[in-house]
Amino acid sequence: MIDLTLIGIGTGNLDHVTLQAIKAMNTADLILIPLKGEDKSDLAGLRQQIFRTCVTNPATRIDSFDLPERDPGTPDYLRRVNDWHDQIAAVWHTAIERHLAQGGGPKVAFLVWGDPSLYDSTLRIAERLSGQRALHLHVIPGITAIQALCAAHAIPLNDLAAPVTITTGRQLRESGWPPGAETVVVMLDNGGAFGAIDPEGVSIWWGAYVGMDRQVLVSGPLEAVAGQISETRARIRSEHGWVMDIYLMRRKSRQSDFPKG
Amino acid sequence: MIDLTLIGIGTGNLDHVTLQAIKAMNTADLILIPLKGEDKSDLAGLRQQIFRTCVTNPATRIDSFDLPERDPGTPDYLRRVNDWHDQIAAVWHTAIERHLAQGGGPKVAFLVWGDPSLYDSTLRIAERLSGQRALHLHVIPGITAIQALCAAHAIPLNDLAAPVTITTGRQLRESGWPPGAETVVVMLDNGGAFGAIDPEGVSIWWGAYVGMDRQVLVSGPLEAVAGQISETRARIRSEHGWVMDIYLMRRKSRQSDFPKG
Ligand SMILES: C[S@@+](CC[C@H](N)C(=O)[O-])C[C@H]1O[C@@H](n2cnc3c(N)ncnc32)[C@H](O)[C@@H]1O
Ligand SMILES: C[S@@+](CC[C@H](N)C(=O)[O-])C[C@H]1O[C@@H](n2cnc3c(N)ncnc32)[C@H](O)[C@@H]1O
Repeated sequence: MIDLTLIGIGTGNLDHVTLQAIKAMNTADLILIPLKGEDKSDLAGLRQQIFRTCVTNPATRIDSFDLPERDPGTPDYLRRVNDWHDQIAAVWHTAIERHLAQGGGPKVAFLVWGDPSLYDSTLRIAERLSGQRALHLHVIPGITAIQALCAAHAIPLNDLAAPVTITTGRQLRESGWPPGAETVVVMLDNGGAFGAIDPEGVSIWWGAYVGMDRQVLVSGPLEAVAGQISETRARIRSEHGWVMDIYLMRRKSRQSDFPKG
Repeated sequence: MIDLTLIGIGTGNLDHVTLQAIKAMNTADLILIPLKGEDKSDLAGLRQQIFRTCVTNPATRIDSFDLPERDPGTPDYLRRVNDWHDQIAAVWHTAIERHLAQGGGPKVAFLVWGDPSLYDSTLRIAERLSGQRALHLHVIPGITAIQALCAAHAIPLNDLAAPVTITTGRQLRESGWPPGAETVVVMLDNGGAFGAIDPEGVSIWWGAYVGMDRQVLVSGPLEAVAGQISETRARIRSEHGWVMDIYLMRRKSRQSDFPKG
């Protein structure tokens, strides 16, 4: 029986780590860190830095493994992602069996970017693994990029007592502004999906590398700042070799939310 | 010039606190804790416990103040809430002026339940305060009840690459299932708003006091567990004098998300 703990570590700021995450790291026998190709080595570095800073238990081992690439030959998006998750589960399985064969203990942990529940595949992969061997699954929540974005801009996520939609760049391009929504958060945008919507009355709060030293923020009426965001994104992306960005858009419809001006 | 820091402290588990929150508490000259009436004294107690556990700087003072009540005589909901926020801003103002008059330093912090961006009035009140005196506003993100719920059930928030709607019990009652949504998270429900929707094909993951020792979880097809949730909620509420609960509902519409079964 394996004890598998998915530990949310926040979104790029070492200090996003919670006391619960630190405790979970220090009770693990093995912490597994995925490597995602050279361009994201900063992120693997951050995980390693968190390990060095937070883990004081000398018995806790760390191991990293290379993530397989998605097969671009599979045309259907969801099928492609599902196949990829199967492959990752197989890689996990191998890494864990190797650890156990070397006499390692049964407590295995993964450091997950942000929170394990939000646009992350780790939980789905863990479910696949549970088909292959008995395991207890635990999740430690972490600060998401959404919280980090709102904190950086010092803005509320929701309008007063109003709903919020969280979506992806792909969805925004395909389906436009979600019906009935006032506040929309967009993640996993490979650039400029906001261009797909009517900017009339829409404000945007954008951030790249949110919470990290190199954090960049832009906000304003979408019409006025869309160009600046696209240019900034392209520039910092070529500067650092990768970029992660997120944005919140609000469409003013209910004046009653702001009676005080 | 005041330095006002809103510190997210997570949702009831001491260990939700982040390293960033601990650092922010220890650089504050004054930490202000609101009291919300006797029935929630557990929550004020938790804030005080966090203070005792996390604050090692002897120069950091703590002070608490009574929150005014909302005026039930104001019929319009948003107007009532807005008036209430004005009143709270006035109470803050008084507490801060008193602290400064006693020679206290300019760094003032509030411990905010969960994350300051999510269904919380602190940011809106801070904005009112900034109309009355010069201030620098900082926000430290915290674990939200949404992350805590998903972690407790070990479930993803979103379906694969799909959107999520966060809403309130009031909105769900008034507007029904949000158009186009597959996953809906409901907060601020004073009980059983899920009764307002067609349960066909809907699964629910419910939690009360999530992350706390007395945490209670129920999940299953909405039709099958709605009664159990309502009964449980009523029972634990009368047992403890108050309850805070949250739930996630998913309506299966896209079989393509689950090709592997
Ligand atoms: C695969 S998802 C993982 C999300 C993560 N689990 C979380 O809780 O935030 C990656 C997306 O999260 C967002 N993201 C994560 N970290 C970010 C950061 N530091 N700055 C900006 N966006 C970030 C971006 O939208 C990115 O495309
Ligand atoms: C005023 S809102 C504050 C939300 C908070 N800022 C956050 O980030 O989660 C209060 C609502 O949050 C949810 N909530 C907060 N803490 C909770 C907990 N420990 N268990 C269940 N629900 C909780 C409930 O839906 C409750 O009605």
